[in-house]
Amino acid sequence: MAKANPERVLRDLYMLRDIGRYKSGVHRPTLSPEDMKTRHWLVSELEAIGHKAEIDGVANVYGRAPGDGPFLLAGSHIESQNYAGWLDGALGVVYALEAARACAEDPDLAGKSGVDMMAFADEEGHFSGGFVGSQSYAGDMTEARLDELQDRSGRGSLRDLLAEAGLAGRPRLQLDASRYKGFLEAHIEQGDWLEDQGLTVGVVTSIVAIWQYRITFKGVQNHAGTTRMVIRQDAGKALMRLWQRIEDTFPDVIAERSVWTVGGVTLEPGAPSIIPGGAEMLFQFRDADPAVLNRLKSHLELLVAEANEQGPCPCTLEVLGESTPAVMSPEIQAAFSAAGDEFTPGKHVMMPSGAGHDAQVLAQHMPAGMLFVPSIGGISHHWTEDTSDDDIMRGAEVFVGAVDRLLKGA
Amino acid sequence: MAKANPERVLRDLYMLRDIGRYKSGVHRPTLSPEDMKTRHWLVSELEAIGHKAEIDGVANVYGRAPGDGPFLLAGSHIESQNYAGWLDGALGVVYALEAARACAEDPDLAGKSGVDMMAFADEEGHFSGGFVGSQSYAGDMTEARLDELQDRSGRGSLRDLLAEAGLAGRPRLQLDASRYKGFLEAHIEQGDWLEDQGLTVGVVTSIVAIWQYRITFKGVQNHAGTTRMVIRQDAGKALMRLWQRIEDTFPDVIAERSVWTVGGVTLEPGAPSIIPGGAEMLFQFRDADPAVLNRLKSHLELLVAEANEQGPCPCTLEVLGESTPAVMSPEIQAAFSAAGDEFTPGKHVMMPSGAGHDAQVLAQHMPAGMLFVPSIGGISHHWTEDTSDDDIMRGAEVFVGAVDRLLKGA
Repeated sequence: MAKANPERVLRDLYMLRDIGRYKSGVHRPTLSPEDMKTRHWLVSELEAIGHKAEIDGVANVYGRAPGDGPFLLAGSHIESQNYAGWLDGALGVVYALEAARACAEDPDLAGKSGVDMMAFADEEGHFSGGFVGSQSYAGDMTEARLDELQDRSGRGSLRDLLAEAGLAGRPRLQLDASRYKGFLEAHIEQGDWLEDQGLTVGVVTSIVAIWQYRITFKGVQNHAGTTRMVIRQDAGKALMRLWQRIEDTFPDVIAERSVWTVGGVTLEPGAPSIIPGGAEMLFQFRDADPAVLNRLKSHLELLVAEANEQGPCPCTLEVLGESTPAVMSPEIQAAFSAAGDEFTPGKHVMMPSGAGHDAQVLAQHMPAGMLFVPSIGGISHHWTEDTSDDDIMRGAEVFVGAVDRLLKGA
Repeated sequence: MAKANPERVLRDLYMLRDIGRYKSGVHRPTLSPEDMKTRHWLVSELEAIGHKAEIDGVANVYGRAPGDGPFLLAGSHIESQNYAGWLDGALGVVYALEAARACAEDPDLAGKSGVDMMAFADEEGHFSGGFVGSQSYAGDMTEARLDELQDRSGRGSLRDLLAEAGLAGRPRLQLDASRYKGFLEAHIEQGDWLEDQGLTVGVVTSIVAIWQYRITFKGVQNHAGTTRMVIRQDAGKALMRLWQRIEDTFPDVIAERSVWTVGGVTLEPGAPSIIPGGAEMLFQFRDADPAVLNRLKSHLELLVAEANEQGPCPCTLEVLGESTPAVMSPEIQAAFSAAGDEFTPGKHVMMPSGAGHDAQVLAQHMPAGMLFVPSIGGISHHWTEDTSDDDIMRGAEVFVGAVDRLLKGA
């Protein structure tokens, strides 16, 4: 039976933390020397267990197991956010590597069936909206789009950084979905749900969709001392009234796990003595259920219509993005649950993912599943992000346990 | 009797509009070549009526009438905001010049008594919070402070621009308040009160104080997808709640002419997928009555305390400025009113000024008074700012009529 070696998993994760270490986290932006060091290390580890391993033209690391199958694909991203956590991405890659090793060490599977490992590039969006590697692999990324990508921190273009990393001109690997029973990704939860419930792993049912909007108000800019209150057309005040209506009424229309956020507000020109002539709000909500998403959208449209009726500042709703929820494979969910029963009985739960992951890209092309481990204090995208050693080890056992079940058809 | 020549006033204002003209307005930032051209023109006009005229070390233009007195000081600023209106400042300077001329042309006053004219530098704040010239003249500006001043549009330091204008090393003229019965300034209203009431001039009773605050909320920055609503500490949402309370309750505590404005709002980091960990509001209110100002401040403190009670984001109130209202001289108000009765009967009104003016600086040192003419549509600080020719001419007659009354003790 393919079984995780939890100490080996911990050892690899601690070793990776020392590559680009920042306080108790890491700074490994995509294609940085530290990022490339981790990718080359993965190649050597994969070759050591008999995988055919390579780094492709967008820095995806791929290790292909020997044999005739069945095969699973497993992985996550290996780069970090800037000066951020040590487990966001790396945990899922090391679990996938461990699954590949465990299969190679299982006499029933070795040389015949197993896990192909993938460490995607730039899920974190150093160069774009993220998911560069998984979109490339899934066939959702054109050469023209790659030509456009620039590092947000000013390190240069993706093309230049690929060339510096010695990857220019390499082919980009493409998914052959027919090879796989499915794609498995593990990740830290990035929320506090598991910790709050005292649980060890979460089996992801779906990855929520993000529906995102720019809401704009047009007022009349004027002098804040000489313009009487009654004739003002204050775009900021109008924005506040809609914001108030959103916060007051969204609790009545959401589902249990819906979230909504006003992330940005800008008043124009933003000076203390000038009545704002324009105002803009960045607003998003997330849910896993298309029916709920549509209900929230309708409600938002209602509030915008109400704002326009009240006046005096015309309000415009602009769609920035309305993605599709990614439903996880029931078969993979069942395998994670069964492995949960074995390795951490009573300590696992079904849950949606509120954050985006490479698995949502793969899920458009093949069965996909995700496993979460707890985030201490729910913290992520910060160097204080952490998960207990025990949870890391139990999670690895559940992950590899599910792989064993799926490959053996149990 | 000293009387205005309204056509001469109009002719001078139209001529000034052609110096640095921008559409129907002007672009004459302080110490620009166009600004200096107007200052040199003023010197020659003042010399032509027998005044001792000069430009001082901060570009204030001063013209001193001959004789033994009594004397009045009159003026405003001559520079414009960037790409802004043709009358904001220039109107008051030309009225003052006209008053000086009218006295020089009045056989009862010529050579004995009259009006000293002042065109202040940088009331508009190209280099600072404004009032550079009037503060210098009133003794409220140190050399060290002048050393610090930099042009906000990047043209360089005040010192460098003074040198380019040929003013380096010149002494800065200082007010001798004992010479004057008072200071008179005319200005466009910059609001729509006079126009709305169908009036021609406003006699300013006081210049409102501006009390200005930075209100800060400290939340917890977190992931907008994975952080449950109930555990969020959203600094933006907390700010919105205070904003709502301000807009809902200020109408109950203000006086008739109080105004309040949320001019700026910033959420940190301001990204759509991040719950704001910090939020900041720029808030101000204005009134002419210290009792009202104190009442509004107390009410604001109450709302901040309420926000801190509600939680979960601590709220801090920081004072950015709490100025003193400048009460205008009753004698000068009476003179403007009497002249109003003569030249525009039934078309003048007593009113506070919602905007700041050089007169508020002078009022700390001597009796001061202000006269307003209507702003079409209440527009100011924009090239579309305008006042009808009729109102400009009537205003000049009232202004000079008040000067005549004050000098002759009528």
